[in-house]
Amino acid sequence: MKIGIPASRGYAIGQAFIKKHVELNITEEKVQDVAKEKDLLRKACEKSKVQLEKIKKKALDSMGEEKAMVFDAHLMLFDDPEFIGAIEGEIENNGLNALKAASDVSSSYVAIFESMEDEYMRERAADIKDVAKRLMNNLAGIEDSFDIEETNTIVIAHDLTPSDTAQLDKEKVIAFLTNIGGRTSHSAIMARTLEIPAVVGLHDITESVQNGDILIVDGIEGRVIIDPDHETVTKYVALQEAYNQEKEELKKLVDVKAKTKSGKRIEVAGNIGKPEDVHKVLENGADGIGLFRTEFLYMDRDDMPTEEEQFGSYKYVLEKMEGKPVVIRTLDIGGDKQLPYLAMPNEMNPFLGYRAIRLCLDRTDLFKIQLRALLRASVYGNLKVMFPMVSSLSEFQKSKELVEECTVELKAEGHDVSESIEWGIMVEIPAAAVMADELAKHVDFFSIGTNDLIQYTLAADRMSEKVSYLYDPMHPAVLRLIKMTIDGAHSQGKWCGMCGEMAGDETAIPTLVEYGLDEFSMSASSILRAKQVILEQE
Amino acid sequence: MKIGIPASRGYAIGQAFIKKHVELNITEEKVQDVAKEKDLLRKACEKSKVQLEKIKKKALDSMGEEKAMVFDAHLMLFDDPEFIGAIEGEIENNGLNALKAASDVSSSYVAIFESMEDEYMRERAADIKDVAKRLMNNLAGIEDSFDIEETNTIVIAHDLTPSDTAQLDKEKVIAFLTNIGGRTSHSAIMARTLEIPAVVGLHDITESVQNGDILIVDGIEGRVIIDPDHETVTKYVALQEAYNQEKEELKKLVDVKAKTKSGKRIEVAGNIGKPEDVHKVLENGADGIGLFRTEFLYMDRDDMPTEEEQFGSYKYVLEKMEGKPVVIRTLDIGGDKQLPYLAMPNEMNPFLGYRAIRLCLDRTDLFKIQLRALLRASVYGNLKVMFPMVSSLSEFQKSKELVEECTVELKAEGHDVSESIEWGIMVEIPAAAVMADELAKHVDFFSIGTNDLIQYTLAADRMSEKVSYLYDPMHPAVLRLIKMTIDGAHSQGKWCGMCGEMAGDETAIPTLVEYGLDEFSMSASSILRAKQVILEQE
Repeated sequence: MKIGIPASRGYAIGQAFIKKHVELNITEEKVQDVAKEKDLLRKACEKSKVQLEKIKKKALDSMGEEKAMVFDAHLMLFDDPEFIGAIEGEIENNGLNALKAASDVSSSYVAIFESMEDEYMRERAADIKDVAKRLMNNLAGIEDSFDIEETNTIVIAHDLTPSDTAQLDKEKVIAFLTNIGGRTSHSAIMARTLEIPAVVGLHDITESVQNGDILIVDGIEGRVIIDPDHETVTKYVALQEAYNQEKEELKKLVDVKAKTKSGKRIEVAGNIGKPEDVHKVLENGADGIGLFRTEFLYMDRDDMPTEEEQFGSYKYVLEKMEGKPVVIRTLDIGGDKQLPYLAMPNEMNPFLGYRAIRLCLDRTDLFKIQLRALLRASVYGNLKVMFPMVSSLSEFQKSKELVEECTVELKAEGHDVSESIEWGIMVEIPAAAVMADELAKHVDFFSIGTNDLIQYTLAADRMSEKVSYLYDPMHPAVLRLIKMTIDGAHSQGKWCGMCGEMAGDETAIPTLVEYGLDEFSMSASSILRAKQVILEQE
Repeated sequence: MKIGIPASRGYAIGQAFIKKHVELNITEEKVQDVAKEKDLLRKACEKSKVQLEKIKKKALDSMGEEKAMVFDAHLMLFDDPEFIGAIEGEIENNGLNALKAASDVSSSYVAIFESMEDEYMRERAADIKDVAKRLMNNLAGIEDSFDIEETNTIVIAHDLTPSDTAQLDKEKVIAFLTNIGGRTSHSAIMARTLEIPAVVGLHDITESVQNGDILIVDGIEGRVIIDPDHETVTKYVALQEAYNQEKEELKKLVDVKAKTKSGKRIEVAGNIGKPEDVHKVLENGADGIGLFRTEFLYMDRDDMPTEEEQFGSYKYVLEKMEGKPVVIRTLDIGGDKQLPYLAMPNEMNPFLGYRAIRLCLDRTDLFKIQLRALLRASVYGNLKVMFPMVSSLSEFQKSKELVEECTVELKAEGHDVSESIEWGIMVEIPAAAVMADELAKHVDFFSIGTNDLIQYTLAADRMSEKVSYLYDPMHPAVLRLIKMTIDGAHSQGKWCGMCGEMAGDETAIPTLVEYGLDEFSMSASSILRAKQVILEQE
């Protein structure tokens, strides 16, 4: 038996298919004929684009438009003068061979995104890695596609790139296992999207298994059993059936409203990043959107999104939600999230630095564009806006002044603005939790951001390997601050939600219900289970 | 009038002496004759050492042994195979000229120490800068000494190095002004040590003043008045007299115990870094040592201090304090404080990372050396030990287990260990403040470390230029956490002190007294004024 990191829930019993992992041989060798080397690069780009067009078509058939769109981004990178230009520059100026140049440039691109905590940013790193790998394989003349013929296949790989997973045929592939990766790596996220079990971080699974071996994958405990005996198979078939039945049971909760046994109605909402994510949230029976991270609108581009573009995105989500509450968080950039077109200071401790509302109140030019777009969209649904990283009342007040300014401007321009927008803050800095009773006099609602709140309360960066053991959502100090925040809101008749990972954690929900939390917002895939847990509470 | 940063209190009226600032002309020119260049370097080192021996002798006469010792450290750097070796390496391997090599190597050394918050670390950066400047001046053939003939001289410089300040004759120099620097720069610290007024960060004062100009220096408001009129001089003479009289009044408080009007006795203690600092604390009438930062024992060396060396330092301080309480903080390294012989992980947010008790509980080998030294020293005075950066009870408990282990070992080896050592924690992480009532059941005392507590509570790195405006000791959330900590301690009959900068801040003391803080620990120079403020409280 092998133990790894459980990345996507469920059980699978099937046969192993090992995706070969070809190591590239990258040398330091310098080139004399720069023109020839640049020509090689150009040809490899062309070849990559042809392959990508094929994969895109396949993805469109098997996974739908949304997933296929990823490959438009890949295709664009091959025409990106900054990315390809940087590789050409390395060849021209430093005489690097094309393979080495592509490797160096892409590594530095990837490194920026890889250290980031945000799921979308990590996906971006996976995309660049994927593109770079394709380019390098084509430069080295390596074929790296795979075709799966058999049904009931468990795919085993060193790692899976976005273009690998886009090629997976869900009719045939029932699980996958990788050597590397964690719960937030691309392959883990993709497994959850595909709703097939996966175990990642297995270190040497590609070496421990032969093609055709029978495997049991336990995506709940993170176990892989190789060539199981009859008894084990019987046991897991039973587990699998129970699991599937439970899943069916959960589906019945789509239209059920979450309520405790004593009758307290609790809102269960979804977190989204891209406007399209709204569909998945609705399919899972959410009462609303509890967190729309707007950073994604600002990413993957060379300039700021215009007011018009943002307005379109907000309007889209508000309309799709048909009057259900939509909490939109204003730009939370900085810290681990950078934008290519926005110069940021070099800070020793970016998590304690220039980010979120601090940046927005400093750069009111760009903040006002977002506020105008939000105000204009407000008439298309039930909009609530919240400001991230608020540590003092004055930050909320300054933000509200800008809102007033924008409202006056918009009305003068003939736009309608809703009168019933709620304005709240994220409670994610200890100071805000400690002062919740006072802040509640001024805001319409709180949403607790547990990821940051835990980090600051315990002074422990959960991305730091050496201290991540300290990061504990159930630390008594964290629980007290959550309780203080909820009590603070209620003391002024305001509501309090939570949109950090803790809100979707089954083991935490009972405590949070007991504390009186009014709204739980989480990733779409956790919504049904959360409803179930809430229904069981007193 | 020029406005700068007030760096040392007091008033001075005198004449300007401008210390010339010679810019070195450092070129990228490569050298062919490596041997010759290394010979130039060697000669410049020798010349520097002769100069330093002279300065050291002068400092010994004018400022005493303690200050003169600084130059032993400078002299040692010229024989340091790592430092000089790195410069030689740049000449040999990269063909740099000696001046450029010295500049590059020293810049990278200085950069490491400059970004640090700790006063002692910044002093170290100033020392290296000073040594490098001397070496480079000698390489370039520039004379950079200055002799002051006149009394009542106000020294004006771009910046002042430790060897500059060591040469200042206090009989003649009554104030100084610099273009650069902040409250914690070397020149500011030195001015406070010399007890002469200083204004730093004046940008262009060296350009705005002529040699011999009459100046008024206001070290309280940070003002410099050039060629004042009669009326202004009269006004400042009066201010100066009042200030001196107040200082005399303060001196009367040396033997007075701090008590509020209602009779509550409050301890006023001193913070120290080096064992020798104990004298200054005693001279200012402290009730004890509230913070002995032991990091200094670990610095300025190539290996760990031995148990014997540490024992010697702790015993020295305990004996000098003659039974008065001495609170020693165990090693608080990491974050912004690094040791050359201790490999540290590269972290994105070192302030939220592997440091202090986290490091010590991971590296029990080195922690136990310190604990053994502390336990052995305990019989020589009134020892209290505190652990830094505690976020959970378990960290305190694990530390105490190691203490037990060491005690058993030491007793078996025939050493005596005091039975009355108190064991406490620094409260500097929000979690510890929030849980103070629970933690107080287990510890003997708290000492609030405001610098870090404020930083984490507000999620604002005070060293980050962009967000330092958020760093506010009087933020209501910070005050609530301080109150919670004090109340938590008292609820279990324990005492609570404070050793961050806030404890010595006259404007904060009344609030802290009202909250019931039992002990205030601060830099020696703030003690008398703090006593005065406390005596005025109800």
